[in-house]
Amino acid sequence: MVWHGIIHQYFPYMPLEDKQHIVTLNEGNTPLIRSLYLEKQLGGNLEVYLKHEGMNPTGSFKDRGMTMAISKAKEAGAKAVICASTGNTAAAAAAYASRAGMKSFVIIPEGNVALGKLAASLIYGAKVIQISGNFDDALCFVRDISESHPVSLVNSVNPYRIEGQKSGSFEICDALGKAPEFHALPVGNAGNISAYWKGYKAYHDAGKIEQTPMMLGFQAAGAAPIVHGHPIENPETVATAIKIGNPASWQMAEAARDDSGGMIDMVTDDEILAAYKLLASKDGVFCEPASAAGVAGVLKLEQQGFWKDKSGTLVCVLTGHGLKDPDNAIKQAGQPISVPAELDAVLEAMDL
Amino acid sequence: MVWHGIIHQYFPYMPLEDKQHIVTLNEGNTPLIRSLYLEKQLGGNLEVYLKHEGMNPTGSFKDRGMTMAISKAKEAGAKAVICASTGNTAAAAAAYASRAGMKSFVIIPEGNVALGKLAASLIYGAKVIQISGNFDDALCFVRDISESHPVSLVNSVNPYRIEGQKSGSFEICDALGKAPEFHALPVGNAGNISAYWKGYKAYHDAGKIEQTPMMLGFQAAGAAPIVHGHPIENPETVATAIKIGNPASWQMAEAARDDSGGMIDMVTDDEILAAYKLLASKDGVFCEPASAAGVAGVLKLEQQGFWKDKSGTLVCVLTGHGLKDPDNAIKQAGQPISVPAELDAVLEAMDL
Repeated sequence: MVWHGIIHQYFPYMPLEDKQHIVTLNEGNTPLIRSLYLEKQLGGNLEVYLKHEGMNPTGSFKDRGMTMAISKAKEAGAKAVICASTGNTAAAAAAYASRAGMKSFVIIPEGNVALGKLAASLIYGAKVIQISGNFDDALCFVRDISESHPVSLVNSVNPYRIEGQKSGSFEICDALGKAPEFHALPVGNAGNISAYWKGYKAYHDAGKIEQTPMMLGFQAAGAAPIVHGHPIENPETVATAIKIGNPASWQMAEAARDDSGGMIDMVTDDEILAAYKLLASKDGVFCEPASAAGVAGVLKLEQQGFWKDKSGTLVCVLTGHGLKDPDNAIKQAGQPISVPAELDAVLEAMDL
Repeated sequence: MVWHGIIHQYFPYMPLEDKQHIVTLNEGNTPLIRSLYLEKQLGGNLEVYLKHEGMNPTGSFKDRGMTMAISKAKEAGAKAVICASTGNTAAAAAAYASRAGMKSFVIIPEGNVALGKLAASLIYGAKVIQISGNFDDALCFVRDISESHPVSLVNSVNPYRIEGQKSGSFEICDALGKAPEFHALPVGNAGNISAYWKGYKAYHDAGKIEQTPMMLGFQAAGAAPIVHGHPIENPETVATAIKIGNPASWQMAEAARDDSGGMIDMVTDDEILAAYKLLASKDGVFCEPASAAGVAGVLKLEQQGFWKDKSGTLVCVLTGHGLKDPDNAIKQAGQPISVPAELDAVLEAMDL
């Protein structure tokens, strides 16, 4: 099977008129990696998979939505796009815009964007503007600017983003031959939980799957507006990709939670970082800190006895690649040992 | 189709006795991305694709070989593995070893390993030892140590690495329905050109393809031992992944060149960086600097009129993801513009 990206693959489910406008980097088709470690930890009778969205072309799940948003912008004749971003959206917007021959502008909150994301946005050719404010401020500006200037908005408020992102559900169902019983993921701007749920419902409506999963969303404790029931003015978390105080898809996320009989809970930074390190050192899977929030959540549920009487398949979405945030990895994992170029020194450092 | 990694996918071609020993992160199945930019630049009558190996689980082509090397080590009952590396091999060894429940030791040359690679190796749980020497020194140590201690060597000198890496050719042929006419790639330790050629020959012998491609390998000008015909004592290049003075697979690489009627040439750091930036800003594809050596090479050939009378399909392998080396991206692409959180300031910076 040759893969030509999610719009070609799932064209009947995508709101695009004509294939000639498709702008693709062959996104999607990401691996579903078995987690023997989590199966052991969670007990119960679970089969556990990691859907590693970090293996999209720009290194995060945002590519699924961006191929749709930029293809629609191209269809509409746009010459430039703009977005506010904590980094992943910026990189995706910049890459797809460049491929489409459009200019891109990304507005990011100063000092809170991981190095890999910033580097990528710049090299893809975006004009990157850092403001001395937070993500929610940046979102206000880009909404204003896109309304008054000839620049297409490709933020989550762009409805086509979620249309593209729902392809993640299709891939999971196609790979498993059914929907999983449980679907865990991080919740930041809340577009992803909304999109996955929309995807499961679309496949269910089409008769492709018989059941839909229980959606288990997890926010960072310092940035948990949906859990607390009100916006958070100054969100704080090590998981920069979900450091969002007023999610764009708040209501859709609550609907996904309620319609699926699931939950949106929160996990601490310590729980997030512990899950992040375990995934790398036990399963060999390196994701960014925010990506581990879903896994941190299912581990928290284990401590509450949640999984004891459960069985079936659990899919945890890892939203971005660990290489997006190398500084954090080094902070968590420590430094290498430096020795002179002598055999004895190397052997001593190895401490066999 | 569900993808379970390259050994499952191409089991008849892989030297493993039993599937139960397979250690996989679902590597391979990387996208073949059309490069409309290169098609325009190269002229002739070419269809050009980028085989983006940065979309393997640890972000480089090394995962293809490492799944084989670690699976064989597991089959043999190994408890620990060691390698010398400029970074990509280290990350792959660490990830697969962790997944297999083995210890891993990686010896790297001090100061010449990209941030993303170092961070990944550490977080995957490897013991990383930096020596005040170069890659070739590191390789001597690990050979010595693996001969005298109970630690399996998973460097390129491990013959199973090339067996796994040859799967890249299989995927290209399966996607195109034939072998490409031209295959361009960077040459550092020279395992990859050897492996791709071995893969094409294996598919040809099996009757899967009728023709094999012309192999076009490119070394960095400051690290071009095969081009010069002698080892380079102090290799120098911005492309750290191919900064190797005495390649392990030298003879196999020359055989691939000669048997395919191809060439191994060199490109300057300026040519490499220009190609690196063009791929990101024109095609939306972000690779590491070394990965762009193959593309730099085909652009150099264009200036020499090489492509004028050529037609067919050209595949350029991009060996690793740009996120592996974020510092270099920022160095090449510049810094973001910082402004106060005010609409007018943002608009002025945008300069529409």
